Amino acid sequence: MEPIMIIHGGAEDVPEEMIPCKTRGVRKACNIGYRILTQCGGSALDAVEAAICYMEEDEVFNAGRGSALNEEGDIEMDASIMSGDDLSTGGVTIVKEMLHPISLARMVMEKTPHVLLAGEGANRFANDCGMPRVPNCQLITEWAKIELEMVKKSERLPRCDTVGAVAMDRCGHIATGASSGGLTGRMVGRSSDSSKCGAAIYADDRLGGVSVAGHGESIVKLCLAYNIVNQLQCGKSPQQAVQNSVNEIEDRFCKRAGAVVLSKCGNVGVFFTSHRMPWAYTKGKKMYYGAKPGELNVSDCSCS
Amino acid sequence: MEPIMIIHGGAEDVPEEMIPCKTRGVRKACNIGYRILTQCGGSALDAVEAAICYMEEDEVFNAGRGSALNEEGDIEMDASIMSGDDLSTGGVTIVKEMLHPISLARMVMEKTPHVLLAGEGANRFANDCGMPRVPNCQLITEWAKIELEMVKKSERLPRCDTVGAVAMDRCGHIATGASSGGLTGRMVGRSSDSSKCGAAIYADDRLGGVSVAGHGESIVKLCLAYNIVNQLQCGKSPQQAVQNSVNEIEDRFCKRAGAVVLSKCGNVGVFFTSHRMPWAYTKGKKMYYGAKPGELNVSDCSCS
Repeated sequence: MEPIMIIHGGAEDVPEEMIPCKTRGVRKACNIGYRILTQCGGSALDAVEAAICYMEEDEVFNAGRGSALNEEGDIEMDASIMSGDDLSTGGVTIVKEMLHPISLARMVMEKTPHVLLAGEGANRFANDCGMPRVPNCQLITEWAKIELEMVKKSERLPRCDTVGAVAMDRCGHIATGASSGGLTGRMVGRSSDSSKCGAAIYADDRLGGVSVAGHGESIVKLCLAYNIVNQLQCGKSPQQAVQNSVNEIEDRFCKRAGAVVLSKCGNVGVFFTSHRMPWAYTKGKKMYYGAKPGELNVSDCSCS
Repeated sequence: MEPIMIIHGGAEDVPEEMIPCKTRGVRKACNIGYRILTQCGGSALDAVEAAICYMEEDEVFNAGRGSALNEEGDIEMDASIMSGDDLSTGGVTIVKEMLHPISLARMVMEKTPHVLLAGEGANRFANDCGMPRVPNCQLITEWAKIELEMVKKSERLPRCDTVGAVAMDRCGHIATGASSGGLTGRMVGRSSDSSKCGAAIYADDRLGGVSVAGHGESIVKLCLAYNIVNQLQCGKSPQQAVQNSVNEIEDRFCKRAGAVVLSKCGNVGVFFTSHRMPWAYTKGKKMYYGAKPGELNVSDCSCS
């Protein structure tokens, strides 16, 4: 199969001045994942993990460093990963003091009999795995502090973006992942869609893979990622499927969302009802990318 | 609409001597819920919450008092509830020191903008709501301690049962809920399917309601509750839908599960691949119940 790498950087009403940084970030993450698929013989899971790790390090995204703060000004992060090969999945919720929740999610998938670890138990598992502790103060950015104050004063809406990735490797295996710093000003202990297979992510080699973003509570209520994959099963194209399901979020809950979708045949769908959703995908020798509704840029792939 | 109340007491290989107690328990819970629907003018949500509260108090079930213990001999509980009226939902995961996680899940649904609270944050919310703290030592039973030792010595398989309920009220609203003490000997922090809308529960007045039980990790991978409701949308009967989906759990993961299903028209489906699943439902003047495959008992309803 032809390797394909798809990235999104969150569906939200991003301030206009942040768009170039976010677009640059998703393109870089897409290159990192695609290089693993094409040059390093890596699996779809490897590509998804590496691409999301990059975005967790780039503080322009709401994941890892740069995570949105809860009502007490602290960080609690969520992540999940899924392999379409055998539907294995792993997730973590309300974890602290780590730069790469996505890597811990993969360890939950591969090293435990469980699919989701929460809170202190998840952090203890991270210690047992030798994952380095990064104090939350090193993950909290000045922008996140300013944003929390603005949200508390109702001067801006809370961020509810996520980062996500979907990949297909040469074996035709599909993987997907998500990582999020959560909703600005949320309650302590709020667990987001990004930790949940079926909500933020879903992958099944027989059908396709999805990673979604947007208002997490609505995404959970509609099982958005599974909902989209299910439409592929009913014969919808990836673009039709993502439009139907994301529009249903708006119709039923008046909330915004977005998603990137890959079918088992290698067709791609991208759609969002938010003001912006930075996205990029690489297929063949081309990278496609955009951030505004209807925007489609094409460039030669620099890493195949 | 004609009120309907459905209960299950967990899908697992229950020791034969526990079957009468569990069957008595699900019948009692069914009566409690049905009475609320028929005599008290209560909503489907009220009926689901009250029926599950009863099972959380009855230590024969793996929920509330009587919960299964984790690898450290402690209790961390999960619960969730959903209203098919507007798809609102609430859940809690790895909560401690409370008898009624299902009531806290309902408070998450009704009093917060979130759908899932985890760990200490959820317990803090419970305190804020005035929910009484019950020390875990009052929830841990002698049988749970013995069972953990047996599981550690591989003398018996871990329990992975749940309790669940589905109800339809006179207005035609459907609600569903689940509560679980989790898997015996699980890792600290393991979050189960029972906290997750889409996995253990789903309700949509336009389609129907589902509550599932069995191997939680497999239930999450297949989004079992949503999967079943989705088949109702495709025209399957409740019985066909539950059989298809529960059999798929066995086919894809070699794991056992079960579920109770209610369609928007008031038709009921019950199916399980586990050795036993105590269940009961009341419709019209009759209560139907059983625990073994193929078993169907009918009695006059004592509370309509």
